[in-house]
Amino acid sequence: MVDILVRGGLLVTMNYNRQIVKQGSVAIESGRIVAVGEEIKEKADQVIDARGKAVLPGLINGHTHLAMTLLRGFADDMPLDKWLFDKIWPMEKRMEPRDCHVGALLGSLEMIKSGTTCFADNYFHMDQVARAVMKAGLRGVLSYGMIDRGDQQKMKEEIRIGRNFVRAFHGKARGRILAMFGPHAPYTCSTECLQKVKELAKEFGVGIHIHLAESSEEVKQTTEKYGKRPVEYLNSIGFLGPEVLAAHCIWVTDKEIKLLKDNGVKPVHNPTSNMKMGSGIAPVPEMLASGIPVALGTDGAASNNSLDMFKEMKLASLLAKARRLDPTVLPAMKALEMATINGAAALGLQAELGSLEVGKKADLIIVDLRKPHLSPMHDIVSHLVYSASGSDVDTVIVDGKILMEKGEVLTLDEEKVLELAQRTSDDLVSRLGGDR
Amino acid sequence: MVDILVRGGLLVTMNYNRQIVKQGSVAIESGRIVAVGEEIKEKADQVIDARGKAVLPGLINGHTHLAMTLLRGFADDMPLDKWLFDKIWPMEKRMEPRDCHVGALLGSLEMIKSGTTCFADNYFHMDQVARAVMKAGLRGVLSYGMIDRGDQQKMKEEIRIGRNFVRAFHGKARGRILAMFGPHAPYTCSTECLQKVKELAKEFGVGIHIHLAESSEEVKQTTEKYGKRPVEYLNSIGFLGPEVLAAHCIWVTDKEIKLLKDNGVKPVHNPTSNMKMGSGIAPVPEMLASGIPVALGTDGAASNNSLDMFKEMKLASLLAKARRLDPTVLPAMKALEMATINGAAALGLQAELGSLEVGKKADLIIVDLRKPHLSPMHDIVSHLVYSASGSDVDTVIVDGKILMEKGEVLTLDEEKVLELAQRTSDDLVSRLGGDR
Repeated sequence: MVDILVRGGLLVTMNYNRQIVKQGSVAIESGRIVAVGEEIKEKADQVIDARGKAVLPGLINGHTHLAMTLLRGFADDMPLDKWLFDKIWPMEKRMEPRDCHVGALLGSLEMIKSGTTCFADNYFHMDQVARAVMKAGLRGVLSYGMIDRGDQQKMKEEIRIGRNFVRAFHGKARGRILAMFGPHAPYTCSTECLQKVKELAKEFGVGIHIHLAESSEEVKQTTEKYGKRPVEYLNSIGFLGPEVLAAHCIWVTDKEIKLLKDNGVKPVHNPTSNMKMGSGIAPVPEMLASGIPVALGTDGAASNNSLDMFKEMKLASLLAKARRLDPTVLPAMKALEMATINGAAALGLQAELGSLEVGKKADLIIVDLRKPHLSPMHDIVSHLVYSASGSDVDTVIVDGKILMEKGEVLTLDEEKVLELAQRTSDDLVSRLGGDR
Repeated sequence: MVDILVRGGLLVTMNYNRQIVKQGSVAIESGRIVAVGEEIKEKADQVIDARGKAVLPGLINGHTHLAMTLLRGFADDMPLDKWLFDKIWPMEKRMEPRDCHVGALLGSLEMIKSGTTCFADNYFHMDQVARAVMKAGLRGVLSYGMIDRGDQQKMKEEIRIGRNFVRAFHGKARGRILAMFGPHAPYTCSTECLQKVKELAKEFGVGIHIHLAESSEEVKQTTEKYGKRPVEYLNSIGFLGPEVLAAHCIWVTDKEIKLLKDNGVKPVHNPTSNMKMGSGIAPVPEMLASGIPVALGTDGAASNNSLDMFKEMKLASLLAKARRLDPTVLPAMKALEMATINGAAALGLQAELGSLEVGKKADLIIVDLRKPHLSPMHDIVSHLVYSASGSDVDTVIVDGKILMEKGEVLTLDEEKVLELAQRTSDDLVSRLGGDR
C-alpha cells in the first residue's frame, strides 16, 4: 500500500537514459518515489489518473526574488539606472516584512500553478519568504541577500542577519527549506565580506547564492577596482567552489568559463530577464559543452515579468539559437534538463530531485496534453519546451503532498491571496507618495 | 437595442490616443462597434460581463501557415537543409487537401483560444484553409503560395491556381475572407512570375504576401543571380508597393529599410521562428523608427511551435532589447501596436480593424485578469505583453459573432478537432513510411 499512485501517464523520467514511458505510473510513499514503470500493481490510498497527460519532475527555478512578484509590471522599458534609482529601490526601501510575505505568497501561487516545485531565492526579509514556502508546501533554497558596499559596520550586520537566517531555517519544514548565504554580487560586497561568507558556508555546510557577471558595467567596475574580471576576481580570493550558485554569468570569457568549470561553480541562466534588461546574452551552449550543468531561472517578476519556467525553457533554447544563428544548438531536451536535473545539481540536490527515479523526493508535475496548442503529438519533449505553458499544468506534488489537483491549489486560498496582493501593492505604491 | 454589450471591462482601445478606460463598455451591432465608452445606456440582446477582465482588439497574426499546425513538433533543432529536405518537404509532398483542412481547423481552434481573430496565410490547398476559416468564424487574409523556380510551365500553372483562388474567395464569408497573391519568395519565383503577380494584384485590387530577406543564404543567392540584395532586386523590377506584405525582412540594410518605407511595404516580424531557425534578428526598432508600421506573426507551428500571439508580443520586445543591449527599445505598447493596429495596417485594413473604435468591425477579445501571474495590477499594457498568455483569453468576438465564451469555443467541436488532428497526423506520418 503506497500513499499515491499516479497512473497511466506519459512519463518523461529525465533519468540517466532520459527514458520516456508511453504509458506508465509513479508510486509515492512517505514523500519519496518508490516505483516508476509501465506496470505497478501496488494499491494506493489515492490514485491520480494521468491518462492523456504527461508526468515529469517538478521544474526547478534556479534564481528568483519571490517578494518582487509584488512589483510585477510596476516599471518596464526603462534605462537600468532609472529603473533602479527611481522605481525599484524606492519601493524596496518601503517594503516591510509583511509586504515581502504577501509577495512571496503570490509568487508561490504562481509557481505552483505553472509547475515549479523548487526555487532558489536571494532577497531581504527572507524569513517571510520561508513562512510563505511553508504554507504553500513548496521547496525553497533561500538566502538573505547581503550588501555591504565596503562598509565594515554594515558587513557585520549583514553577516549577522545572514547567519541567523541559516541557523533558523536550514532544513526546516521536513527539509523542504534549505538555506544558503546570499552575498548580492562581487561589486556590492567587499572582498572581506565574500571571504567571510565562504568560511561560514563551509562551517554551516550550506551553499552560496550570488549574482555574477550580469552586466558589462560590472566587468568594468571589477576590472577597475581589482584589475580582474568578475569570475577571475572571485577565483583570486578563493571564493569559487561547487557550493556557489551563480546567477547570470553573461559576461564570461572562455578563460572564465574554464574557471567556473574547474571550480564546480553552478551558473543559472535567466534568458527573459537578461533580454528584458538588455544585460547581454550568456554563452550557455559553450558552458554546457564544457560540462557545466547550467540551470535555469526566471529572475524576479519585476524584470521578467513572469515566473513561468515553461516560457523560460523555450526562451533559453531560442536565445542560444539566435545568438549563434544555428537551429541545432540547445535542443529541446537540453532546455528541459536545465529546468530539471541541472537545476537539482545546481542546488546540490542531484541525489534528491530533478528526475522521476526510485528513491528521489516525490516532486512531480502532471501536464494536461489535451489542448489544441499541444496537438498533434509527435514529440513530448518538443511540446513541453516549445509549445506548453505553465497554464497547462494540471497537478503538482511536492514532497509527496498534493499542492494542486486539476488546476485547484489546495494549500493556498487563491482568491484571498490575489485580493491581499492587490491591497498590499496599492498600499505600497501609496506609501511612495510624492517620491514616485 | 444593440446585439451585444460588453460591459464593465478595462478597455485597451488602441485608438489614436491609445486610450485606456478603467471601466467601460463596447456596444456591437450588425458586426460593427457602435459605441465605446464609460457609460453606454443602450439595451442589448446579449450582455457580456467583463468586470475583472480586459477588453482589447483581437490580435492579428500577420504571417502564418495554418495547415502546418499538423507538423507541430514533428522536427526541431535541425540544420535548415536537413529540416526542409528530410522532414518538412517529404511531409508536404504527401499533404492532401483534407490534411490541410484538418491542420487549418486545428490552427483555427488554437488561434481562437489564444485571442487571435485575424491572420494572413500563405500555403497550398488554400481553399481548404478558407473552408476552415468559414467554419471557425475567424477572419483570414489568404494566399496561395506560388513557387516556379524559373520553370515557365510551372509558372503558368501556379498563376492559374493563385488567380482562381483570388477569384473564388476574395470577399467571401461576409468579407471575413480576403485573398492575396502569394509568390513564395524572390529566390523561388522567377522575375517574370513576380511581375505577373504584381499586375494581377493591381487588376484584382488585392495584396501580395511574400517571404522576404529571411536568410543570409537568400541574400547570397539573390546577389549572385541579380547583382542586388533581395529588397533592392524587388525594387528594381517594380515589385514593391503598399499592397506588399513582406514576412521576415531580417537581412535588410539601412538603404533597404528606406526602400521598404518609401514604397509603403508592410514587413511582418516573426521573432520566435527567426530565433528557432537561427535565421537572424530583424532590425525592428529601426524599421519602426523610420515610420514603417511593422506587424507581428507567429510563422507556422512547424517552426515556432505555437500560434500564441501573446508569446510573440513579449518576444518581439525582448529580442529587440537583447539585440541592442537596451531595455528601452520596443516598449510594451509598441509590441501591442504591432499585434493590433500595425497588423491591421499591414493587411490594408486599418479602417476596419486593430482598435476599439466606433465604426470598426467588432473583432475583440476579453482577457481574464484574475490570475496569479497577472497580479497585482500596476499597468495593463505591461501585463498583456509581458505576463499574459493566450490561455488567459476568456471570450473572442469576430465580426460581431461570439466564437468563444468563457473559454468554450462555440464554432468548432474542440474534442472532435483534436481527435481528428491526431488521426490525420498519424496517418500522414505513416504515409511517409520508409522515407522517414
